[in-house]
Amino acid sequence: MKWFLDLAGLTRPQVNDLLARANTLDRYPAPDALRGRILTLLLLRPSFHTRASMEAAMARLGGSTITIAPARDGWRIETGTEVVMDGNTAHHARELIPAMAAYSDVLGIRAPGGYDSLSADLKESTFASLSKICDIPLINLESAINHPCQSLADWKTLDDLKVPGRGGRFVLSWSANPVGHPLAMPAATLHMAAMRGMRVTVLRPDEFALPAPVLAKARKAASAAGGTVIECSDRDRAMDGAHVLYAESWISPLYYQDPVKDQALRAGYADWCVDELWFKRAQETAAFFHTLPVRRGVGVTDDVMDGPRSKVITQTRNRMLVQMAILHRMLADN
Amino acid sequence: MKWFLDLAGLTRPQVNDLLARANTLDRYPAPDALRGRILTLLLLRPSFHTRASMEAAMARLGGSTITIAPARDGWRIETGTEVVMDGNTAHHARELIPAMAAYSDVLGIRAPGGYDSLSADLKESTFASLSKICDIPLINLESAINHPCQSLADWKTLDDLKVPGRGGRFVLSWSANPVGHPLAMPAATLHMAAMRGMRVTVLRPDEFALPAPVLAKARKAASAAGGTVIECSDRDRAMDGAHVLYAESWISPLYYQDPVKDQALRAGYADWCVDELWFKRAQETAAFFHTLPVRRGVGVTDDVMDGPRSKVITQTRNRMLVQMAILHRMLADN
Amino acid sequence: MKWFLDLAGLTRPQVNDLLARANTLDRYPAPDALRGRILTLLLLRPSFHTRASMEAAMARLGGSTITIAPARDGWRIETGTEVVMDGNTAHHARELIPAMAAYSDVLGIRAPGGYDSLSADLKESTFASLSKICDIPLINLESAINHPCQSLADWKTLDDLKVPGRGGRFVLSWSANPVGHPLAMPAATLHMAAMRGMRVTVLRPDEFALPAPVLAKARKAASAAGGTVIECSDRDRAMDGAHVLYAESWISPLYYQDPVKDQALRAGYADWCVDELWFKRAQETAAFFHTLPVRRGVGVTDDVMDGPRSKVITQTRNRMLVQMAILHRMLADN
Repeated sequence: MKWFLDLAGLTRPQVNDLLARANTLDRYPAPDALRGRILTLLLLRPSFHTRASMEAAMARLGGSTITIAPARDGWRIETGTEVVMDGNTAHHARELIPAMAAYSDVLGIRAPGGYDSLSADLKESTFASLSKICDIPLINLESAINHPCQSLADWKTLDDLKVPGRGGRFVLSWSANPVGHPLAMPAATLHMAAMRGMRVTVLRPDEFALPAPVLAKARKAASAAGGTVIECSDRDRAMDGAHVLYAESWISPLYYQDPVKDQALRAGYADWCVDELWFKRAQETAAFFHTLPVRRGVGVTDDVMDGPRSKVITQTRNRMLVQMAILHRMLADN
Repeated sequence: MKWFLDLAGLTRPQVNDLLARANTLDRYPAPDALRGRILTLLLLRPSFHTRASMEAAMARLGGSTITIAPARDGWRIETGTEVVMDGNTAHHARELIPAMAAYSDVLGIRAPGGYDSLSADLKESTFASLSKICDIPLINLESAINHPCQSLADWKTLDDLKVPGRGGRFVLSWSANPVGHPLAMPAATLHMAAMRGMRVTVLRPDEFALPAPVLAKARKAASAAGGTVIECSDRDRAMDGAHVLYAESWISPLYYQDPVKDQALRAGYADWCVDELWFKRAQETAAFFHTLPVRRGVGVTDDVMDGPRSKVITQTRNRMLVQMAILHRMLADN
Repeated sequence: MKWFLDLAGLTRPQVNDLLARANTLDRYPAPDALRGRILTLLLLRPSFHTRASMEAAMARLGGSTITIAPARDGWRIETGTEVVMDGNTAHHARELIPAMAAYSDVLGIRAPGGYDSLSADLKESTFASLSKICDIPLINLESAINHPCQSLADWKTLDDLKVPGRGGRFVLSWSANPVGHPLAMPAATLHMAAMRGMRVTVLRPDEFALPAPVLAKARKAASAAGGTVIECSDRDRAMDGAHVLYAESWISPLYYQDPVKDQALRAGYADWCVDELWFKRAQETAAFFHTLPVRRGVGVTDDVMDGPRSKVITQTRNRMLVQMAILHRMLADN
């Protein structure tokens, strides 16, 4: 496995191999497996959990991590073609990435979209322009429309909780947030649940409906796995019989390039804060999922976060474990 | 040993075990002892020496360190309860610390007080609110009123120099500094010398007298160990027969919430700059201690810093060694 | 070998030993060689390639790196003597460097000159003031007038490409750049090619002629090795028969303290952008070298950078490999 870019690119046996490997590495530590091996992280948007979970994954296998967060260090990476670099960018990705590859055994790149163009982001144009330069193993740590490491961790968490695949009811819900977030998390989460063969409902205000290509891709995965994908804006109907409520917040695709209008729109949906009432028709032990960080009192109440439904720390720990499996699969088998 | 939060919480045999272990690890390196193990540092106030000495301690034992310095990365951690996070904090300690714990084998937290309330800081309210969320081994890397790693290092330095415990004369002195520093260092230093059974004098201008609870705690430790604690503002009397002068600077407890008045006050004590004359009645080989960094020409002269009395680099090296002992005790015995 | 400060301080057999060791470590990894050993980097000017290549070198040998970049963390290091530190510097190099040495097995210092005084920079006054405090092995990671790690990497790259020493024609050329860069790279590159016994031409506009002491030192090395050093401002003549064109940009020594005049001067030489035409009289397979980062479209065209002449990634990878050799020579033989 040279690339880990999209869960959709893996077969079910490949997914199962990674999940099994994560469990094995959890039970039987392998602190020498990647001795002397190097991961370089290029984080075009900084992230505590991405950085820490990857550094931890590599360290537990005996390897080392070099972290590059250009924004933190006050520099910007040029990615254009035929550009005259007479301004304030001194590093071009066409050298930076091969240089990182020259020092490393595997790269991890976090390159969210720029909100400049929804169609460009749906085509993953930023991530693609970076990844095509890379000739060593590469892990997608969040692109414009994908987040496969988080989704594999969530898959493992669902397995850990014995939430059924076919027949399991999965609700992906928009939730309130003062800030618009990328489409990467909802798109990846939706696809993961669909691949698992679950009955998936995307619950959101109508203005936050996910783009058609995202839904189409998920429906294709669902139909191959025996699941379904529907959309809904009615909370009670969506939550009926749910095994899992996965809350996220995302930008309105209608106002993708207009943060002011997006902000105004989301201000009208402050009541989309998950509390215990959301679960009244759900399975009794229905679980609450959320990628960290979480805005308490805005997207979810303290009651839910601190109660038994909340599985956010299990999700977090699984993030490290599945990344260990990916790194181990990429580097230790060779 | 799951927590290393306060020297006062250790028995004398526990202190002796750590000091002996530090010497053993110095003589017989153990570069495999913590192979594959992870320390995460949460530094709510950045610090070169804390970071470097902890990273070095972990690396010498074969482990790895993940360092989180939120201020450096431009984010702030929410710690309040029942808070509505609709402002500029996106991470709450109630998730951040369990997530760090999910990735790590041990945490180190540096969380100085906020100068908002002396009584809250004397109760360690900030550090306590963070530490109670942590369910893995935890090291206090400086709280509002404590700094046990530095104090254990200083204890080792006193032992290395064969400064007697009972009968040894220890002067903790305020010294000049343009900036007010926390009470953590003087409180921890005083307590350490008292626990060692020394005759301790706190030398300071009257307005910088340490708070009564700090003195009471130290006097209790002194009386258990056969030592004494007195206060004094007369330099010559304090230094009479001293084995050690430990200089620090700290904020005036009278103006704990008023940096302007504190600054005005300290401007009148610019003559509290340690020079060779301070030692005229001391033991001939009396040592000069100071936690790094040091303001040369302000709190101490170049003569003293560069002369044979200065033990600051020995203190620094011992910081790493005792932290190796603490980490080894917490993780390698299991 | 306790210091690696200047290629000029090494004998030819010492250079050969390091180059051979780099090749050996490339072919036969030694991930346990520096187990439990620590490198501390003090980067007074931040640099991605210096940091990453050193962290990678240390990690591949099983060691760990602590990186200190004071500017990034918002603090400044005092280096003066007899200074009264009542301003905004809290750390003096006279403690910081011994403290780093107390935690580490080897230091790497990047301390470019300050453009305050050409004569002070030619004497390496900043680097010398720091290095003389250090009593453990020390690596120069760029001083005012030197960059020996990069030069040793370039030597290896020339060897890898089988570019002849004696008889090989080496052109070091100034190239356009909106920003003035230090003299370290051209001075070090010139000296390396001279030591290799090559016929070296320094190609530059007259106002960018290198300082006389730099040329004199290189000419001494050239004459010992059977090579020559000439200066030239005529591109075609300089490139005649060249095996290598090494492009860099540097500040005008005439306006060393006057960035405004330097900037105005360099604006007139925008045509010094290396393109394929520069190579018309060169050897058919003549190579293009440049230290990263590179300003595409300004100092060199995309055609050259993306074409077969460009060896910049080989240079980059060799940077890591020769640094592994240096670290291994310093630490693993003992």
